[in-house]
Amino acid sequence: LRSKLPDVGTSIFSVMTQLAQESGAINLAQGFPDYDPPQVLLDALACHVSTSGQQQYAPMPGLLRLREAISAKTAHLYHVPAPDAATEITVTSGATEALYAVLAAVVHPGDEVLVLEPAYDLYGPAIRLQGGVPMYVPLRLPDFHPDWDQVAAAITPRTRLILLNTPNNPTGAVLTSTDFDALAELLRNTDVLVLSDEVYEHMVFDGEPHRSTLQHPELRERAFVLSSFGKTYHATGWKVGYCIAPPALTTELRRVHQFVTFSVSTPTQHALADVVPTTALYDSLPAFYQQKRDLFRELLTGTGFELLPVPGGYFQLANFRALAQANESDVAFARRLTQQAGVAVVPVSAFYHNGHDDGLVRFCFAKREATLHAAAERLRTLT
Amino acid sequence: LRSKLPDVGTSIFSVMTQLAQESGAINLAQGFPDYDPPQVLLDALACHVSTSGQQQYAPMPGLLRLREAISAKTAHLYHVPAPDAATEITVTSGATEALYAVLAAVVHPGDEVLVLEPAYDLYGPAIRLQGGVPMYVPLRLPDFHPDWDQVAAAITPRTRLILLNTPNNPTGAVLTSTDFDALAELLRNTDVLVLSDEVYEHMVFDGEPHRSTLQHPELRERAFVLSSFGKTYHATGWKVGYCIAPPALTTELRRVHQFVTFSVSTPTQHALADVVPTTALYDSLPAFYQQKRDLFRELLTGTGFELLPVPGGYFQLANFRALAQANESDVAFARRLTQQAGVAVVPVSAFYHNGHDDGLVRFCFAKREATLHAAAERLRTLT
Ligand SMILES: CSCCC(=O)C(=O)O
Ligand SMILES: CSCCC(=O)C(=O)O
Repeated sequence: LRSKLPDVGTSIFSVMTQLAQESGAINLAQGFPDYDPPQVLLDALACHVSTSGQQQYAPMPGLLRLREAISAKTAHLYHVPAPDAATEITVTSGATEALYAVLAAVVHPGDEVLVLEPAYDLYGPAIRLQGGVPMYVPLRLPDFHPDWDQVAAAITPRTRLILLNTPNNPTGAVLTSTDFDALAELLRNTDVLVLSDEVYEHMVFDGEPHRSTLQHPELRERAFVLSSFGKTYHATGWKVGYCIAPPALTTELRRVHQFVTFSVSTPTQHALADVVPTTALYDSLPAFYQQKRDLFRELLTGTGFELLPVPGGYFQLANFRALAQANESDVAFARRLTQQAGVAVVPVSAFYHNGHDDGLVRFCFAKREATLHAAAERLRTLT
Repeated sequence: LRSKLPDVGTSIFSVMTQLAQESGAINLAQGFPDYDPPQVLLDALACHVSTSGQQQYAPMPGLLRLREAISAKTAHLYHVPAPDAATEITVTSGATEALYAVLAAVVHPGDEVLVLEPAYDLYGPAIRLQGGVPMYVPLRLPDFHPDWDQVAAAITPRTRLILLNTPNNPTGAVLTSTDFDALAELLRNTDVLVLSDEVYEHMVFDGEPHRSTLQHPELRERAFVLSSFGKTYHATGWKVGYCIAPPALTTELRRVHQFVTFSVSTPTQHALADVVPTTALYDSLPAFYQQKRDLFRELLTGTGFELLPVPGGYFQLANFRALAQANESDVAFARRLTQQAGVAVVPVSAFYHNGHDDGLVRFCFAKREATLHAAAERLRTLT
């Protein structure tokens, strides 16, 4: 049996979560909260599970009432024309399926896809499964900001798509309207598409708004924009996300989505449709997460970790060189931190196709205050 | 934008369901029940939704306790060695995702995949999305039984996989142990893999047991075997299925699954794990569905439809030639039946890549008795 992905192992998130469990470590590796979704959402799901007639297949593009709620929310939040629920919104099995299905729908064998690195670990393999060629453009310290000249230099006649991720996982960097203008100019006379992963859209800090690709009319015409109810509602285990894209792009996405999963849990979609209109549930998120970020940074003072700025997302990058043993790789350090200190993290080299190692690890701070306190205590024990 | 599937429209099941809704027709087209899952399962899900700590990512291969329940059930039901929960069972977003992910994991560009037609509408496009070449072998009237000599003739050095579906959708045909022996002999000196879609495993009638590919040791070694909790528990909208395969095959499947959806709804998996051990919930299914089949056949007596035998599954095929207008295609007839008589069905040509038309439509009889009665009344009004 010839593997399609011979060099791909188990996703780093699974590996570190398992190591955390085996070591009794606090899991700050995989990106998920250790608190529950809002009670109103839990109640809504319990209610729809008990509603006769809501347990069979949802429509393939998603429940219409959920798509309508997403449409209204998008217009309200980003002051943009509402995406059409019928032709521009597709509900998927998490943003993961949306990412995969977009790539499967538009990447032909030999097509190049621009990936700004460090990048979420599925991008590369999912592109390669389509016979596509990931073209990596580095985002570099100190701020991991895209260098648009480097992006421009990487565009060729075979470029099909560029992947954006704002706020970025793992770096926390956010794109500005200047970035979007620069990108729009680069793409103006090409037919390069944009896949914009915005699952951390509600976690942008310090009074800045999240800038969505949807707000740039020229980019929006060629963009698939993704979000995740799992991230927004502390319900990563429910696996519901969505994609907003113009009708012609949505047609291609659905052609594939119908064969990848067909549709998404009906009662779960009903529950989400009930709560999406409640703006308070997401308006409170920037402050909620900023408080966690600030607490965690304060708690890490004096531990020897050098903390990078975190404009958005729910991850803290930290340089561990002051704590490292001689020539210790980030992978080795992450294992040692998990096994000796009892705090699991992700080595940032896992976000590079070539294992590039900047001496950084990623902490997830989407945790209860008590968890962050306990983790910081343990981090101080590292010798 | 060059489409990856230029000739593929919206899945026939969505098209007919939508036409049914627009026409106020009874939907006997798409395969789903119009009754609810067992109360114990609904209660279990409501309970797990309210359980703190069960709303975040499940492990990528599925909850261990659900995989263990599947393992025990499989051994009990088919008198076979229990598949290993750790290395041989993967929980997926419905059998749809399992089908897709298996194809994505093993089909390389240029590989041939044998598809026995009529066949479920995702097989062909999902193969083509991998750059694979579906090689169609006809199953023909009167019994739609595979002709293993024809299958043998279709095998080439490029054959990577053969797709089985027993009980078959749409024909209802079931494979026997003689079939499995014949197939095993054909494949003995090849490295052709088997993908066995057994989502209707609990709907085999007239006292016959379901024969699973898992019961044939030689085939099992090279097989991915799929099932669907949606079909078994009248919960098609919950989107949970699974795949059983030997460790080396499971490794390849998971390599892809982790990037296609990553994981499946955690509370839903917990609920299923609670009920899978209750054998009564599935032991009653053959009689439950046989009664529906028999009732529906009786109700159709005298309508002019000529009914084909239904050894398994939850579909009734019927020849409509006696009711057809001159040169009426099965697609035209299905539309007329939906719009004029108010009963939606699927034209069987939708299950052939080349639109082959035997003058057959497919009825789903997984419906309440009242629904079957009402549909039969309406079918008598067709002029
Ligand atoms: C799908 S598991 C990964 C979760 C996540 O978004 C992360 O840890 O980066
Ligand atoms: C995924 S919708 C199709 C349901 C089904 O199995 C069928 O109607 O054949």
